[in-house]
Amino acid sequence: MTTSDAPPRDPWDLPDVSGLVVGVLGGTGDQGRGLAYRLARAGQQVILGSRAAGRAEEAAAALGHGVRGLDNAACARASDVVIVAVPWEGHAATLRELREDLDGKLVVDCVNPLGFDRKGAHPLVPEEGSAAEQAAALLPGSRVTAAFHHLSAVLLQDPAVEKIDTDVMVLGERRADCEIVQALAGRVPGMRGVYAGRLRNAHQVEALVANLISVNRRYKAHAGIRLTDL
Amino acid sequence: MTTSDAPPRDPWDLPDVSGLVVGVLGGTGDQGRGLAYRLARAGQQVILGSRAAGRAEEAAAALGHGVRGLDNAACARASDVVIVAVPWEGHAATLRELREDLDGKLVVDCVNPLGFDRKGAHPLVPEEGSAAEQAAALLPGSRVTAAFHHLSAVLLQDPAVEKIDTDVMVLGERRADCEIVQALAGRVPGMRGVYAGRLRNAHQVEALVANLISVNRRYKAHAGIRLTDL
Repeated sequence: MTTSDAPPRDPWDLPDVSGLVVGVLGGTGDQGRGLAYRLARAGQQVILGSRAAGRAEEAAAALGHGVRGLDNAACARASDVVIVAVPWEGHAATLRELREDLDGKLVVDCVNPLGFDRKGAHPLVPEEGSAAEQAAALLPGSRVTAAFHHLSAVLLQDPAVEKIDTDVMVLGERRADCEIVQALAGRVPGMRGVYAGRLRNAHQVEALVANLISVNRRYKAHAGIRLTDL
Repeated sequence: MTTSDAPPRDPWDLPDVSGLVVGVLGGTGDQGRGLAYRLARAGQQVILGSRAAGRAEEAAAALGHGVRGLDNAACARASDVVIVAVPWEGHAATLRELREDLDGKLVVDCVNPLGFDRKGAHPLVPEEGSAAEQAAALLPGSRVTAAFHHLSAVLLQDPAVEKIDTDVMVLGERRADCEIVQALAGRVPGMRGVYAGRLRNAHQVEALVANLISVNRRYKAHAGIRLTDL
C-alpha cells in the first residue's frame, strides 16, 4: 500500500468502521453471543447467524441492542465483516458450505482448536497449520483474518462488566483488512486491536487459549492478555 | 503435594528463593546476559556459563552485581537453578553434553525455536513438540520447566530501565518446581511469575515470540505480555 518513500504510517491510525455490519457465525454459542453483545453495545450493527434462523432470532432478541438473527448463509450475505465463532468440530464443514455466501467478505476467524483430557486442555494442530489457515484455504474468495481468541465468554456476556481489560491480537495478510478488525476491537471499551503477524503465525495465538485455561484454573480468574510497551 | 481434603493453596504464596544460586547457560548471549543482570541486580547469586570460561568471566565482570563466570559444565554444577539461554541451533547438543552436570537441577528453558525469512519470523516445531520438551527428553534426571520467553533483551540489559513491565509464564510438570521459578521471576521489579500449564503447552508460548517480533516491528516497541484479571 505504501511505497518505501512514503512516511511510516501511525499504526494506531485506524479506519472508521462504525457503518459496517458485523455477522457472527455460530452466534448462539457463548463466545459468539458474547462478541455480538459487546459489539452491538458499542454501537455496531450486528447479525447473529445460526444453523436455524429461529434459534438465531431468539438469541438475538435476548441480547437486545438491535441485534438481529438469521440463518448462517443469510447472515454471511447481509454482513460486511463475518466473525467465525463456530465450534472447531464444525469449522471446516460450515465454511465449505458457506463459501459462496462469504465471497468477498472480510472473515475473522476466532476459533481455537483444542482437545481436552484428564490433564486439561491442549492444542490440536490442523493440517493447514491453524483454524485461520484452514479458513483461508477453504475460502479463496474471502479476505481471511484471525482475532478475538483470548476473550472470556463469561466477561463478554456479563452486562455488569463495563470494560474488557484485554488486547485483541489481529493476524492477516493484508494491512487494510487487519486494520478494519483492529478498529472493530477498539470500539469495545477497554479493548485495543493490535496487529500481531501473518496467518502463518496464527497457530500459537489460537493454542495459547490452552494456557489461559490453566491460568484460570490455578488463579480462579478470567485471564486476558495485554501487550506492554505499546 | 496437597490432598483433596486440604484447603486450596494461595497461588501467590511462593517459596523464598533468595538463597538459591542461578546459573545461566549461554549467558554471554543477549537474552542470557539480560536475565543474569536483572536477577543479580535483584540480589540473586548468579553465574554466567559459556563454552569458554574466559568469555564467561569477561561478560560477568561487565555485568557487575557479583555475577561470576564459569564454563557451562562448572556453571551447571555450581547452581541450584539453571536457565538454558543458548541459541536454538545449539540447544540439543549443549544439553546432551551437560546431562550429568544438570542431574537433579531445576532447569528453566527459555529458548524460542524460530526461523526467519523475508516475511519475518515463524516458529519451528521441534520433534519433541517444543524446546522445553526436548530438554525434558534429553535430561531425564533434571526437573525441567520453561519460562522467561517473552522478555526484551534490550530492556533487560538497559540499566536505566527500573521495572520490567511483563508477566513471566511458567510451565512445568511439578508445582513445587514451577513455584521456585515463579518466585525467581517475581524478584525482578515489575515482573510476576504466573503458572501457565504443563510442558505439553510450551510450544505456543515459545512460538508467540514470532508474534511479538511482528508487534515490535509495527509499533516500534519492545512488547511484553501481561495477563489480566489476576
